[in-house]
Amino acid sequence: MAISLLKWRASPRRPLQPDRAMDLPASLLQDLSALLGERFSTATAERALHAQSESHIGAGLPDAVAYPADTAEVSRIATLCAAHGVPLVAWGAGSSLEGHALAVKGGITVDFRDMNRIIAVQPEDMLCTVQPGLTREALNQALRDTGLFFPVDPGANASLGGMAATRASGTTAVRYGTMRDNVLGLEVVLAGGAVIRTGTAAPKSSAGYDLTALFVGAEGTLGLITELILRLQGQPEAVSAASCGFTDMAAAVACVIETIQTGLPMARIEFLDPATVAACNAFSGTDLPLCPQLLVEFHGAPEAVAADARRFGDIAARHGSTGFHWATATEDRTRLWNMRHNAYRAILASRPGAKAIVTDVCVPISALAQAVEDTRADIAESGLSGSILGHVGDGNFHAILLIDPADEVEIARAKWLATRMAERALALGGTITGEHGVGFGKLPLMAAEHGAAWAVMGQIKRALDPLDLMNPGKLVPQATETP
Amino acid sequence: MAISLLKWRASPRRPLQPDRAMDLPASLLQDLSALLGERFSTATAERALHAQSESHIGAGLPDAVAYPADTAEVSRIATLCAAHGVPLVAWGAGSSLEGHALAVKGGITVDFRDMNRIIAVQPEDMLCTVQPGLTREALNQALRDTGLFFPVDPGANASLGGMAATRASGTTAVRYGTMRDNVLGLEVVLAGGAVIRTGTAAPKSSAGYDLTALFVGAEGTLGLITELILRLQGQPEAVSAASCGFTDMAAAVACVIETIQTGLPMARIEFLDPATVAACNAFSGTDLPLCPQLLVEFHGAPEAVAADARRFGDIAARHGSTGFHWATATEDRTRLWNMRHNAYRAILASRPGAKAIVTDVCVPISALAQAVEDTRADIAESGLSGSILGHVGDGNFHAILLIDPADEVEIARAKWLATRMAERALALGGTITGEHGVGFGKLPLMAAEHGAAWAVMGQIKRALDPLDLMNPGKLVPQATETP
Repeated sequence: MAISLLKWRASPRRPLQPDRAMDLPASLLQDLSALLGERFSTATAERALHAQSESHIGAGLPDAVAYPADTAEVSRIATLCAAHGVPLVAWGAGSSLEGHALAVKGGITVDFRDMNRIIAVQPEDMLCTVQPGLTREALNQALRDTGLFFPVDPGANASLGGMAATRASGTTAVRYGTMRDNVLGLEVVLAGGAVIRTGTAAPKSSAGYDLTALFVGAEGTLGLITELILRLQGQPEAVSAASCGFTDMAAAVACVIETIQTGLPMARIEFLDPATVAACNAFSGTDLPLCPQLLVEFHGAPEAVAADARRFGDIAARHGSTGFHWATATEDRTRLWNMRHNAYRAILASRPGAKAIVTDVCVPISALAQAVEDTRADIAESGLSGSILGHVGDGNFHAILLIDPADEVEIARAKWLATRMAERALALGGTITGEHGVGFGKLPLMAAEHGAAWAVMGQIKRALDPLDLMNPGKLVPQATETP
Repeated sequence: MAISLLKWRASPRRPLQPDRAMDLPASLLQDLSALLGERFSTATAERALHAQSESHIGAGLPDAVAYPADTAEVSRIATLCAAHGVPLVAWGAGSSLEGHALAVKGGITVDFRDMNRIIAVQPEDMLCTVQPGLTREALNQALRDTGLFFPVDPGANASLGGMAATRASGTTAVRYGTMRDNVLGLEVVLAGGAVIRTGTAAPKSSAGYDLTALFVGAEGTLGLITELILRLQGQPEAVSAASCGFTDMAAAVACVIETIQTGLPMARIEFLDPATVAACNAFSGTDLPLCPQLLVEFHGAPEAVAADARRFGDIAARHGSTGFHWATATEDRTRLWNMRHNAYRAILASRPGAKAIVTDVCVPISALAQAVEDTRADIAESGLSGSILGHVGDGNFHAILLIDPADEVEIARAKWLATRMAERALALGGTITGEHGVGFGKLPLMAAEHGAAWAVMGQIKRALDPLDLMNPGKLVPQATETP
């Protein structure tokens, strides 16, 4: 298949501008200080903390950082900033990978550190209401004795507001869905300070436009999420996990495809290529054989889990699996998934001093083998060090490309590879991002994915945020890109 | 709990205006005739067919009816109508219950009768691409030999475009989700004629605003759906269904709640009150005991289905079930679900000459018992004949209120009851409509459910359809209702 490459536009890097706080109108600074006291800061150190990102994307300092304590304060901040035309950028745990929370147009970063409470748990309705700064691990820790858990697991201990804003997913989406499926309702502060509620505690509704789904994945460009109603799941009675090696990547992917099609209810099915396995073994002290590996997990009643595991074993055997390691004891499973969750750090550690460019594409299951194989070949040809891993039950995989941050040639090659992967995903009927979102990094690819529909996103953005104050410079067509 | 009632606004009935076609500009009539030939009609009989509805809501004739054959024709119709400021209303199977497809402001009804093809089935990806006029039964008939099926089942043989537009669900949503969960992508003709595509064939995406979710449930007010990518499910290896009687409604509802909370994967769990059972027995020749009944179904591997059925039996016994009738043979199941699907007609037939006002609320599971019991008491007090049934696994239930269409007092009482049910659902944390949608009938209740968020829906509508040509008079705040 011929892949015509988009012309890659380099991300403009905004130089650090430590003195820029003085650009904010004095009356705004005064009003925000009066409102928030110590919880409003223009200190360079505070701002620098919010100019960092897990990604390669650079941006300058925000002009100030606010730490609101409740929705009323967020609304007041939005009202004041609208009056002065000052941008607002939400900040959760800072773990996003496409520069979502970087203040690329300056303005005030709203850090939800202090809005991290569980407001209510309704065990009978299997849902809870939380503030956006709560992290998923803190939520699950608090739920431990209720018999319930929140299933979406992107690996990082992200904030739930950030996970909603980026429509995050991760290892368990194949069973429990993404944030799209697990956010039932929201409270949102709009540009200008109005507060709205979307959704209800009822399991479904046909009452008008699905505003919840519109704000989930909007990456803060339409408003600031100040409260979330989340679906919870029952903690499974039994859990069984395994790693399973294959002679080649095509066999592993074929096994995934057949497993999906037979309707086996996997809770997780993850793919690691040999480069990832090597890095994980070195980092986590594990001893997985150096071949393509699937990591699987089943949740359910004990007899169902046992039957599912047997059926998966049969499918894997038909695809020439080279060996199974079951991890039924809790500590073995913890070890397995810690290894998987540390894969990114493990790959980074495999080349000291390197930075990573992390790609994230998602394709129809039938195209998965081709997409992964072609990506493997591209990486080999590029001469870069790159590992492939992913949530292959969703057709979603990542290449983690290691670069020397001082080597412009390596950076350009890695970006070229990332673009080529995204273009291939589109050619195969897929998407440029399965779970990381658009942020700043994927903006140049949005037109290729959405065509005329991207302009519709711009129309919605302008309708809700006519002054372009909510996380400007992200997701929608920018003024310079609109014909 | 004190329920303060909204003041009910009677639906204005537009008198039949058979000569109104002459209002359409001659050049538009000429252009549409040239485009569509015999597939464009201003004949009174043709228009009258599109002024009917399953509901009590009345409206006049559309000014003309168009039967496009492809997306290009729909786009051309939208372009021509925009030039003349003429409204467009989509028509599928005409089975909606809130007057969604009635041309309450006149204009042209676009009937998708001739756009009813399956464009592609991708069995490996478990999805298909279809045109909006295809009905769900026709789709499942065509899929029969693929091992796959489309699970959303609202009872009526609705068109898939209409089901998407109203965010329909039905008996199987407890297992497979609603149209929200089962539409992966759309092609939409916007006001003005632009054609966009939303979503991809990949199982998930984080690439920008979820436009698919925005158009699903928009009831044609933002554009005309011309193509749908739908998720399919594997036909279950084994199916087991049963009816199960209870001594009282509270026990049946308590059984539902416990079943949900234990995580039993029901494919269906339906509630019928004794009045519904009596009507069904008379209409379908069944002999269910005249007590509150749950109808349940399990899908899966044979051993899993057997285990699930046993566990459900244990739960039902703890709640004092009075008797179980298992329907494992295909013909017994068909008989059971035909009876359920004919419940609406059975209830109508129980009072010859009557019309029905069908209500549709959805509440958190924990509030279900109270909501159903209070509704029962309200119906008894009203003196009306009313039956309660519903998809109680989702907290979603209906009261079917029988009225003499000539008796204004009965009509007013039924509308009062419907409003009271919706208000109670809101007070209990639920929604005014679980699956029927807003249309014209639920418009007066939208402000109570959404508050300030309703205005946001209006902003989105105006951004995408500034001339208010797409199904005007529905879903969003109307000019007279905006402050």
